[in-house]
Amino acid sequence: MDEKMVKNAIGRLVPTEVNGKNAIPFQGVGKFRPTGRKTAPSIATCADYPDDGNKVVPDLKTALQKAGLKDGMTISTHHHFRNGDLVANQIFDAAAELGVKDLMWFPSASFPCHAPIIDHLESGVVHHIEGSMNGPLGDYCSHGKMRGLGVLRSHGGRYQAVQDGEVHIDIAVIAAPTADPFGNANGLTGPSACGLLGFALADSQYADKVIVVTDNLVPFPCVPWQIQGNYVDYVVVMDKIGEPEKIISGTTQITKSPDRLMIAELTAQFVRDAGILKDGFSFQAGAGGTSLAFAIFLKEMMKEMGIKARFVRGGSTQYLVQMLEEGLTDYILDGQTFDLDGVRSMRENPNHVNTSPFTSYNYHGKGNFASIVDVVVLGATEVDVNFNANVVTHSDGKLLHGIGGWQNCLFSKCTILPIPSFRDRIPVIVDEVTTVCGPGELIDVIVTERGIAINPKRQDLIDATKNSSLPIRPIEEIKTEVEEIIGGKPQKPKLGDKVVAVVKWVDGTILDSIYQVLE
Amino acid sequence: MDEKMVKNAIGRLVPTEVNGKNAIPFQGVGKFRPTGRKTAPSIATCADYPDDGNKVVPDLKTALQKAGLKDGMTISTHHHFRNGDLVANQIFDAAAELGVKDLMWFPSASFPCHAPIIDHLESGVVHHIEGSMNGPLGDYCSHGKMRGLGVLRSHGGRYQAVQDGEVHIDIAVIAAPTADPFGNANGLTGPSACGLLGFALADSQYADKVIVVTDNLVPFPCVPWQIQGNYVDYVVVMDKIGEPEKIISGTTQITKSPDRLMIAELTAQFVRDAGILKDGFSFQAGAGGTSLAFAIFLKEMMKEMGIKARFVRGGSTQYLVQMLEEGLTDYILDGQTFDLDGVRSMRENPNHVNTSPFTSYNYHGKGNFASIVDVVVLGATEVDVNFNANVVTHSDGKLLHGIGGWQNCLFSKCTILPIPSFRDRIPVIVDEVTTVCGPGELIDVIVTERGIAINPKRQDLIDATKNSSLPIRPIEEIKTEVEEIIGGKPQKPKLGDKVVAVVKWVDGTILDSIYQVLE
Repeated sequence: MDEKMVKNAIGRLVPTEVNGKNAIPFQGVGKFRPTGRKTAPSIATCADYPDDGNKVVPDLKTALQKAGLKDGMTISTHHHFRNGDLVANQIFDAAAELGVKDLMWFPSASFPCHAPIIDHLESGVVHHIEGSMNGPLGDYCSHGKMRGLGVLRSHGGRYQAVQDGEVHIDIAVIAAPTADPFGNANGLTGPSACGLLGFALADSQYADKVIVVTDNLVPFPCVPWQIQGNYVDYVVVMDKIGEPEKIISGTTQITKSPDRLMIAELTAQFVRDAGILKDGFSFQAGAGGTSLAFAIFLKEMMKEMGIKARFVRGGSTQYLVQMLEEGLTDYILDGQTFDLDGVRSMRENPNHVNTSPFTSYNYHGKGNFASIVDVVVLGATEVDVNFNANVVTHSDGKLLHGIGGWQNCLFSKCTILPIPSFRDRIPVIVDEVTTVCGPGELIDVIVTERGIAINPKRQDLIDATKNSSLPIRPIEEIKTEVEEIIGGKPQKPKLGDKVVAVVKWVDGTILDSIYQVLE
Repeated sequence: MDEKMVKNAIGRLVPTEVNGKNAIPFQGVGKFRPTGRKTAPSIATCADYPDDGNKVVPDLKTALQKAGLKDGMTISTHHHFRNGDLVANQIFDAAAELGVKDLMWFPSASFPCHAPIIDHLESGVVHHIEGSMNGPLGDYCSHGKMRGLGVLRSHGGRYQAVQDGEVHIDIAVIAAPTADPFGNANGLTGPSACGLLGFALADSQYADKVIVVTDNLVPFPCVPWQIQGNYVDYVVVMDKIGEPEKIISGTTQITKSPDRLMIAELTAQFVRDAGILKDGFSFQAGAGGTSLAFAIFLKEMMKEMGIKARFVRGGSTQYLVQMLEEGLTDYILDGQTFDLDGVRSMRENPNHVNTSPFTSYNYHGKGNFASIVDVVVLGATEVDVNFNANVVTHSDGKLLHGIGGWQNCLFSKCTILPIPSFRDRIPVIVDEVTTVCGPGELIDVIVTERGIAINPKRQDLIDATKNSSLPIRPIEEIKTEVEEIIGGKPQKPKLGDKVVAVVKWVDGTILDSIYQVLE
């Protein structure tokens, strides 16, 4: 083990240096106090930009050259196309053609469609990736093959890191379903419409150079401008930037599993019986099968009770859109559209509102939206008896998922994780999670098919539900029951000493380390 | 004369120091090159803000105290209520009660309703004002009574000054017709609806502390959030923040003067005959009587020709709204609503788009909207034979008007000043303007009732109109004709040596000095 490691406030060993920069160990929720000032971009002048507002250049390679692409730079992209992105790979192909090496790729997330980047990691064009790695790139990183450390940040943590100057973006490339020659851009219209572009907001505001890539160039002005052309240096038009049908998360189908349906229903019942479900309340649920089922159950309860939400947070799906269209919520505050109904609704309905990691999740702001939400329902790969939860690694230690807005959402007034008590005969409730992504003090309720565990820190929730018919049990009891069924504790993953990635907390401190898997 | 004065690039004497800071003399259009980085606000943390998002404090005085109000600070306000603002005076009344002295008031503009600030200037609560001074405060400044120098900036120049750190705002107070407890705010709804809040954008982004004052508090979320609550520290609710019926500019009535109507019609004919009036074109006209009449004539020509504008820039009025609603333009890109039809349209019509000094006018950005506009029609108090124009002082030397977006608009592809050749028997075309607000090289056409003068630098416009029936004449010829009618050259204003204010150019350099009037 090369890295100098220290124990952080929750007892996890974390490196004191990450990719050549000092790293601060996690100090506890709300304990780290930032100092200093936000990072400040260079002052530009209109004298350097075309008077007619036309920033179009012939192709991506030209734009990268004009932007001064060179060895060691940091290149950022957004992931609103999810697994349908057609731009990121082309950036690094162009960089390879230009003979550039050692780039840092800073995507807001990467997906299986980005597997070709492995070739660029192997050849040295890309040095390492900081950002969520879903699938093949996570697997590659897990096996210790990447030169630098993977750095996993939440959506809010990514904004914070850019804003605070922890990550300096040299060139941001923003794939935009519609744009004008000035660089105003949105995700609402055009053949590749993906909804919104909020994940690219920080990139547009703080990168030295900003390139907008579109397959739908319209005359100025592109309205609305989710990305403001006043931050943009160059515009590139190409045939096709994304496959919007692939923005659909693999998991955006309501679960059909009887156990998961039961978990979803129990979760909705908990929300009702704890007194959270009342007129004007707010909730956020993910796009996983159980979360979607939860939203459906909740919707039925809302109808029965004759109540309406003030707002629902997206990732939006057809199910949230239906709630909005049926008048069951005043607003959807959306950060990411997970299906094409979400895209349509955001385009057509002014009450389906475009948000960004700045408004929703940035912990180094003057508050954010996340802590205002009454209840949030999230997934997890593992939870431990101290309510710490894991969302990035599997129980075999492999890094296969990003954090998304998960950490940020933990700040809601009530955080519930509806999870099966085991998956593929592997227990989900464990003594200690493989990777801590969320400190237990922020996780309030675990709902399984074997009962509901309330965090002892939430006496208010315990009191509120004590006379309910909900199957509330200590978390240890559920864990023991599962271990009895499968015949003992689960195997520990086979991990080496080498740290391959770190998980940052929302404030930029290091929450945990991810180790090389040995297979 | 105390100040050290130097001649700038257009031969005007300007101070090298303004209010204790070094000042850069104007170097020519596009010649000054900014260096360094934008100013960077302190990094905040959500740990310091209420989890439930409720930032409401009991009253304005409490908010100012919590924001750390103390001697010598800079307090900013916006002017979307124009002469109907009820908040700014209360700020300085509260400051007086708190015994605070020597504040700098940094409004985006001040109006006659702010005359009570004179008492605070006299008593020492306010040290000086940097910002447009329409009416009594301008008169006060003109007479040399203010302790510091008045600094006049365009809307874009104000954004630039804040962004570049030339003006550090300690506390921004943003009067908002609708807001939520988190500080999200807009000007669209509520009893005091004024349309938009773009003039407060820089203030929200860069001030140390931001106070939103509203008379229409709604539950989170206030949608849309023209001002983002993530920048806001405190929210104050008061009975009434503004009188929206007074946002109507005193001049937003179509002129009835036959001469001015003729000037307006000639201007529209010039735009047509010069080939500017074609499908997909764009224009901006002010809210003055002649500009409004121009828009009406233009509209008729557009109908006759069967063409449509791509966009029209506001300040919006009922006349622009009619064009939008009749399908004569795709968009209104609006920076300021000048009447209640403008407010309504912006609230109801997604193609009536909220812009800001950042998008439209900031010269220290990666381009801005102003230079994309095909033709802009502006007023002036004086024009000289070199096409330099004045918009802030009268020919008696009195500072009575702000610059607004006037300087920024000069960057359009064709700038036309339709002006009467004399007012109250005082010639408007002169040998040398009292105050240079716009360098002649950016002013293309002067339209008077005695003929049209084209700037010799615009050979393209001369060529385009040479076969037209337009009464095109040299500017000197028009000037001489007027002098013959009134019997000689106009009297020079009686001015002292003392500089009372400076006019900044859009890049922060000093374009001209304004001298004390001697009466």
